[in-house]
Amino acid sequence: MSLVGARCVVLGAGGFLGINLCRALFAAGATVTGYGRRPHDNTALPADLPWHDADFADDARVAQAVAGQDIVYHLLGGSVPAQSNAEPAADVVGSLLPSLRLIEACRAGGAGRLVFASSGGTVYGPTPAGVQTPESAPTNPITAYGINKLAVEKYLGLFRHLYGFDAIVLRIANPYGPFQHRRRAQGVVGTALAHALAGEPVEIWGDGRVVRDYLHIDDVAAAMVAAGGYRGSRWVFNVGSGEGRTVRAVVEDVCTLLGVPRERIVHRPGRAVDVPYNVLDNGLVRQEMGWKPIVSWQTGLTATAGWLAERDAGRL
Amino acid sequence: MSLVGARCVVLGAGGFLGINLCRALFAAGATVTGYGRRPHDNTALPADLPWHDADFADDARVAQAVAGQDIVYHLLGGSVPAQSNAEPAADVVGSLLPSLRLIEACRAGGAGRLVFASSGGTVYGPTPAGVQTPESAPTNPITAYGINKLAVEKYLGLFRHLYGFDAIVLRIANPYGPFQHRRRAQGVVGTALAHALAGEPVEIWGDGRVVRDYLHIDDVAAAMVAAGGYRGSRWVFNVGSGEGRTVRAVVEDVCTLLGVPRERIVHRPGRAVDVPYNVLDNGLVRQEMGWKPIVSWQTGLTATAGWLAERDAGRL
Repeated sequence: MSLVGARCVVLGAGGFLGINLCRALFAAGATVTGYGRRPHDNTALPADLPWHDADFADDARVAQAVAGQDIVYHLLGGSVPAQSNAEPAADVVGSLLPSLRLIEACRAGGAGRLVFASSGGTVYGPTPAGVQTPESAPTNPITAYGINKLAVEKYLGLFRHLYGFDAIVLRIANPYGPFQHRRRAQGVVGTALAHALAGEPVEIWGDGRVVRDYLHIDDVAAAMVAAGGYRGSRWVFNVGSGEGRTVRAVVEDVCTLLGVPRERIVHRPGRAVDVPYNVLDNGLVRQEMGWKPIVSWQTGLTATAGWLAERDAGRL
Repeated sequence: MSLVGARCVVLGAGGFLGINLCRALFAAGATVTGYGRRPHDNTALPADLPWHDADFADDARVAQAVAGQDIVYHLLGGSVPAQSNAEPAADVVGSLLPSLRLIEACRAGGAGRLVFASSGGTVYGPTPAGVQTPESAPTNPITAYGINKLAVEKYLGLFRHLYGFDAIVLRIANPYGPFQHRRRAQGVVGTALAHALAGEPVEIWGDGRVVRDYLHIDDVAAAMVAAGGYRGSRWVFNVGSGEGRTVRAVVEDVCTLLGVPRERIVHRPGRAVDVPYNVLDNGLVRQEMGWKPIVSWQTGLTATAGWLAERDAGRL
């Protein structure tokens, strides 16, 4: 269904997903309001996007933000996977509890639909090598971050069951593309590109054989827009490319693209939070929403490198 | 493996599971310490059981209780399934967070093993009628209670993965037997027996066709003792009878046993928290631990009725 005129609120609108989603919703003709921490880059958000600086811990603020909206996008994250294991309880307090209060606020405030950005890279935990993971696969996260994403999914399922609450879960693969934080550890692609462009050593964590499913952020945003208008009965969807790439291959592609000599690749110790293989089966979202990935790896990587170079040069 | 001399601590020792577990561990020759709210019935616990009144919210107390123990039994519940949905966040704060701190305390304090009493009746959510549910089935709880039990399981899996933490999860079916609370809503069997013995109307919630897996508490306690000594590599086990009974059949068996006329059966509205069918596949615990249910339904029901009658008569 078209989102023209649909009242959408994006919670976490100042982050990597949020910025790109706001732009995509705007382009789709939706009426968008952003809540979050304003991004450093002032050009990132549409100029006339109604914006509210908001703290996710402020329940009254959240309730006000979602009341009467057609579609609420929940992109609020908490910590990052590796950090979450150092202090698991902190993620429960900082991420799960506020998510629960948000779900309650959406129900109480009559929000039409909640779209939750879950994590295809962490909710499943270890998966068999060489196999695309379907939504029905076992879920055994090896990070507290993943457990909390999964718990939010379970609460959404509970509210669907108890109250007919309308919720859609998108288990998103490893997104990359414009508006990623340059220095924050947001994914292999952005980090490798940033280091390569800065003339610094390009790092590989572990043996480089870890396989991930990289998806350009334009494709992620398109799936989130499609989820807003979806009219079918399914509610948990993988959003990934369906293609696996090793970290080594990503780093080598980055080096080839930017003419970086292989000697600048350095190896760092692997981490227990890295599952060896994670590639998502995207058959369900293709079939149900008519979505498919549009941006090829080479195109996406080249465009992202170009965008980062422009930003570094101060031209963005 | 035998538990003779093993240092065991039971957290939640004053509850229905806890009392019966303490008695079974005692009988197995373990060195047992109980923590919890002291039961009203002073004869319930072994006379020389070291006992500590303890509040689960007191982290220092919990840390002290588990440090250096061979086996920690985590029987602490939080709310009951039906109540948990009224205030989901309360269960996260009152049950999930303390469980997380307990797991951390066990790891920090060098406890040998944690045995967690999970809930076979709630972690799966709706299951196909007529099929025994295996441990590998999807987990879609329809109560916040079940979601929190599941989340604790996931954290135990995380700690196993990250630290080699030794944890066993028992997904226990509907237990019944001596030392159930008479007036607290602890299961259909105890409630029906109590009402029948008191000469009150015997209630059926819903249409009476809800199917459950009832297991005598002696069999539950035996499985918990076996889990303490288990030396295999599996860690999540169903503990159930494998037999399904409708609520109607249970109530009718109770009425037959106690000579209650059918006119005393009254019907109450069903609840959204009741899954229609829940019977556990117990093949794994049979195979791995050599455990099997010993107490037949007729024997268990008769013995429980006899025990309740004795207690009501003040002879216990």
